Amino acid sequence: MKIGVLGTGMVGQAIAGKLVALGHEVTMGSRTADNPKASEWSGGAGERASNGTYADAAAFGELVFNCTAGAGSLEALAAAGADNLRGKILVDVANPLDFSKGMPPSLFVSGDDSLGEQIQRAYPDTHVVKTLNTINCQLMVDPGKVPGDHVVFVSGNDAGAKSRVTSLLTEGFGWKQVLDLGDISTARGTEAYLLLWLRLWGAIGNADFNITIAKA
Amino acid sequence: MKIGVLGTGMVGQAIAGKLVALGHEVTMGSRTADNPKASEWSGGAGERASNGTYADAAAFGELVFNCTAGAGSLEALAAAGADNLRGKILVDVANPLDFSKGMPPSLFVSGDDSLGEQIQRAYPDTHVVKTLNTINCQLMVDPGKVPGDHVVFVSGNDAGAKSRVTSLLTEGFGWKQVLDLGDISTARGTEAYLLLWLRLWGAIGNADFNITIAKA
Repeated sequence: MKIGVLGTGMVGQAIAGKLVALGHEVTMGSRTADNPKASEWSGGAGERASNGTYADAAAFGELVFNCTAGAGSLEALAAAGADNLRGKILVDVANPLDFSKGMPPSLFVSGDDSLGEQIQRAYPDTHVVKTLNTINCQLMVDPGKVPGDHVVFVSGNDAGAKSRVTSLLTEGFGWKQVLDLGDISTARGTEAYLLLWLRLWGAIGNADFNITIAKA
Repeated sequence: MKIGVLGTGMVGQAIAGKLVALGHEVTMGSRTADNPKASEWSGGAGERASNGTYADAAAFGELVFNCTAGAGSLEALAAAGADNLRGKILVDVANPLDFSKGMPPSLFVSGDDSLGEQIQRAYPDTHVVKTLNTINCQLMVDPGKVPGDHVVFVSGNDAGAKSRVTSLLTEGFGWKQVLDLGDISTARGTEAYLLLWLRLWGAIGNADFNITIAKA
């Protein structure tokens, strides 16, 4: 499949690298076509990897990942362009982290709204699926790094889109447990969880952890 | 031990009932000394159970549980009185749920503050320990209802207070995993998790669940 990955940071590199390894063609998008990190990545990632602007990556992808920092996601998506995203699945991995008051960050949207919903409202003709935002980027694409049936969540309004993303998560990324929380408003839950994730990170001392759902 | 339980709702009844069953003497406190729910509870809970005002319960307890609704917690604690709480451990089980915009609730404080911190700031001579706020009240006092080593968190500024509360959670309530997240500011994490808990509740269909930490 042709996939666009918006964002050149650790998350974008982890996702894009895994997708190429799985055999997909990937264009990594950034603000400028000559972004050094994206150029270096595509130069070293083989013939299925390329890079360009956000718009290039969104136009290229049948499916698009938003791996930009949450605070810049709406701006990056505006640069990607509604026409390039129309009718496509947008996998939103970003979190609305607000570092303006120092560490640990808080959230710039929470409670009665979420970044996932903001993106879905801004792109009503795109199927936004929020997922993978509750784990470290290395674990996103290598869940076996942590033993057990730990869980990744999906939130989105379109059942078909969630089903396709779930297949990519299970058959592609190797996730054993994918829990569909419901419509995109359930992204409020997974985004807010980041505040607990940050404290677990502090208590555990590294980012190689996740949660498992224990049920009666 | 003599324990005060502030709050007459499901959480207060679950905690107070368990404490009496463990052999503790418990006074359940409410706004008025003749609260029907508290009177009914103490009437049916044996000779170690009594009820009174918030101040009565706080004065009685060597250790005090805040089981009031989050939106009313600061008012209830003001009625309990700083003098009655001075030097004591206050186990804060409340969540800052805001139902003013309908269901599901949001949080009236989140991100760069928490209800646990608000309470600690208001009662600097009391050792606030936030715990048990991430599970349903039945599971709080009967963690064995759900199999596995699922986890309960403690947050607080005083190591001795957290140690005493941890003993009550393990030896008393039967918790196998108690994770100390750090100082009271880590309550931001567990309170924010409620937004995910609410969505898990919706997806799972009942409240008999919790999370386990999976680590590398």
